[in-house]
Amino acid sequence: MARVNENYLKLPGSYLFSEIGRRVRDFSAQNPEAEIIRLGIGDVTLPIAPAIIEAMHKAVDEMGEKETFRGYAPDLGYDFLRNAIAENDYKSRGCDISADEIFVSDGAKCDCSNIQEIFSADSRIAVCDPVYPVYVDSNVMAGRCGEYDPEKQLWSNVIYMPCTAGNGFSPEFPKENPDLIYLCFPNNPTGATITRSRLQEWVDYANKTGAIILYDAAYEAYISQPDIPHSIYECDGARSCAIEFRSFSKNAGFTGVRLGFTVIPKELEADGVKVHPLWARRHGTKYNGAPYIIQRAGEAVYSEEGKKQLREQVSYYMNNAKCIYEGLRAAGYTVSGGENAPYIWLKTPDNMTSWEFFDYLLKRVNIVGTPGSGFGPSGEGYFRLTAFGTYENTVKAIERIKNMD
Amino acid sequence: MARVNENYLKLPGSYLFSEIGRRVRDFSAQNPEAEIIRLGIGDVTLPIAPAIIEAMHKAVDEMGEKETFRGYAPDLGYDFLRNAIAENDYKSRGCDISADEIFVSDGAKCDCSNIQEIFSADSRIAVCDPVYPVYVDSNVMAGRCGEYDPEKQLWSNVIYMPCTAGNGFSPEFPKENPDLIYLCFPNNPTGATITRSRLQEWVDYANKTGAIILYDAAYEAYISQPDIPHSIYECDGARSCAIEFRSFSKNAGFTGVRLGFTVIPKELEADGVKVHPLWARRHGTKYNGAPYIIQRAGEAVYSEEGKKQLREQVSYYMNNAKCIYEGLRAAGYTVSGGENAPYIWLKTPDNMTSWEFFDYLLKRVNIVGTPGSGFGPSGEGYFRLTAFGTYENTVKAIERIKNMD
Repeated sequence: MARVNENYLKLPGSYLFSEIGRRVRDFSAQNPEAEIIRLGIGDVTLPIAPAIIEAMHKAVDEMGEKETFRGYAPDLGYDFLRNAIAENDYKSRGCDISADEIFVSDGAKCDCSNIQEIFSADSRIAVCDPVYPVYVDSNVMAGRCGEYDPEKQLWSNVIYMPCTAGNGFSPEFPKENPDLIYLCFPNNPTGATITRSRLQEWVDYANKTGAIILYDAAYEAYISQPDIPHSIYECDGARSCAIEFRSFSKNAGFTGVRLGFTVIPKELEADGVKVHPLWARRHGTKYNGAPYIIQRAGEAVYSEEGKKQLREQVSYYMNNAKCIYEGLRAAGYTVSGGENAPYIWLKTPDNMTSWEFFDYLLKRVNIVGTPGSGFGPSGEGYFRLTAFGTYENTVKAIERIKNMD
Repeated sequence: MARVNENYLKLPGSYLFSEIGRRVRDFSAQNPEAEIIRLGIGDVTLPIAPAIIEAMHKAVDEMGEKETFRGYAPDLGYDFLRNAIAENDYKSRGCDISADEIFVSDGAKCDCSNIQEIFSADSRIAVCDPVYPVYVDSNVMAGRCGEYDPEKQLWSNVIYMPCTAGNGFSPEFPKENPDLIYLCFPNNPTGATITRSRLQEWVDYANKTGAIILYDAAYEAYISQPDIPHSIYECDGARSCAIEFRSFSKNAGFTGVRLGFTVIPKELEADGVKVHPLWARRHGTKYNGAPYIIQRAGEAVYSEEGKKQLREQVSYYMNNAKCIYEGLRAAGYTVSGGENAPYIWLKTPDNMTSWEFFDYLLKRVNIVGTPGSGFGPSGEGYFRLTAFGTYENTVKAIERIKNMD
């Protein structure tokens, strides 16, 4: 008799953004006249840049002609894209990463959630708290997280690293020894960053303890200050302890286009076993490559025109971030993030819980944000707003919040 | 200290098609003048049909305009595509499948390999022998298959259902009780089919034993005879015991475009637990939807123009299949498949092993096929040729085989 993976049944409620979607739909159904502004989910609003559109049209045409049609892509990605990534994201920053250490995929969410499966079932994971829910949930599904305490909102077998106002939203080394450490900088949800010297300490810590750092750098395009690393491979020794995830969703607006990649240095080992061939094997067995058309879109991200157009897009969103940050401060809120990240992290007023503030904001001024508690217990009492809306809506939203009694 | 998933280390050698690729590259490097014809991997050669190209151009344009830009897709697929699938692939055939039972993905390979993770870790799987390697390998990675016997090419904890000339390449019910049964018809690699009445017996068997059938119908477009089911949901009771996988790779040439879907009826249960919400949860947590542009391409598959153009493509490949089938028979080979499937399954001559025949064919006449033993021990002594080449190359390949010594 077939039986289900019982770990799935341990997952509490639905995925955070599904729950937000449900509440917004319900509110909207009851208040059809409400003009809702969504600054919740990290979804972009600017259309795809012209250089990328042009590249996609060209690739579509190629797929329609016998001479240029492409069937199955190479398992790990086309060389034209892997080379462009290695050159532009790594070599140009002095990072020693080669094209064959880059695994092209359909997005960082897939990679972040799938990576755990190449590691031992009894691996202990450490995560920041608050944290992007996918890291924990994917490990729950694999049975690594123990039991859930709904009161504390904690899993018994996960090592949590609180990121609070007290430590500047930067995690301290855990007291227990984790096997896998998830780090995300610029951070989702807090918008906090890490300095190069602090990240170097993490790399040294991982090399000393034999842990592997799973480094999510999906938001690196938003870094504006010079001492903040764009890649973990800017640190000495990262090649022997770190895997890096990158996305095209936020720097190029590919949330509906779908493209990302993972970097695994060839010498990276887990207890003496090379990790690179395992991930290659997973790709070969469970994946068939990102669409050719989309990989050409990715290539155009690195063209001169593409780079120029995308710098403008990032500036546009960062201007929104500034508008939110300064507007909320002026309105008396305690805010952080938003300077090197598209996320603004604010303290809820009047000791409201995160979900209370979510409902309050939705009902009072028809603005959708993300409850901090959805990212973990240390997110309780916080709220995330994103800079990915239109400028007009962002300004309007902040005006509405300012004018709430 | 991080450690790897040791199940990965149990996998013997590399994935079948990677090994073929390696041998062909080596041969080609040593014989640069050889004009190699590839009838090995099931990759298509015709360009994408005009109706689909047009739909993709339109979608690319939409992504470039503010008013029509689309960010994150709905987790489970756009309604326009799910509705088209439900209507055309199911309702029109009298199958009771609704749009919200369809999960759009980037391909059947991903779905076939990921589906196992929503089931219990100690599930016993049954597979046909020979079989598409992904079913077994994905379960090996999850630790379900026991130990590998390299001599017998068998995993100790997998129930094998031999498909041989003796049983007309149609599996018999296993003696042991499996929890999950992988079936693929029209079959890859043998090209064999199953009658509606025999598939009904499988459905009845699964409903009686509580097993779930994982039905891979990736090749249904190649069915030419009326008593062969296109979907398992043509059988009574399949809604309570079957999951179906479909691909756009073979009916529409999407091997490099990437689109597929999985059907899970809402009442399907495993030991009293509904399966549909688990797969939905997996999609929500580990996947971000197929690209909008690609989903529009999928929609165009069901347009009147698209259907017409794709019928022609399928006919083209089936003409190749006929050419291979009849040519090999005329040359004295024992062949099957090819009538309702794009695969021709042939007995190797002179008691050669499958890999011996692979090397022989590659070296003697520069033709690449797929060794039957790569699909399992009952594939030893067999060889797979595909109909997905160009007509010219197919004719040329058969002439070369006919004229060997």
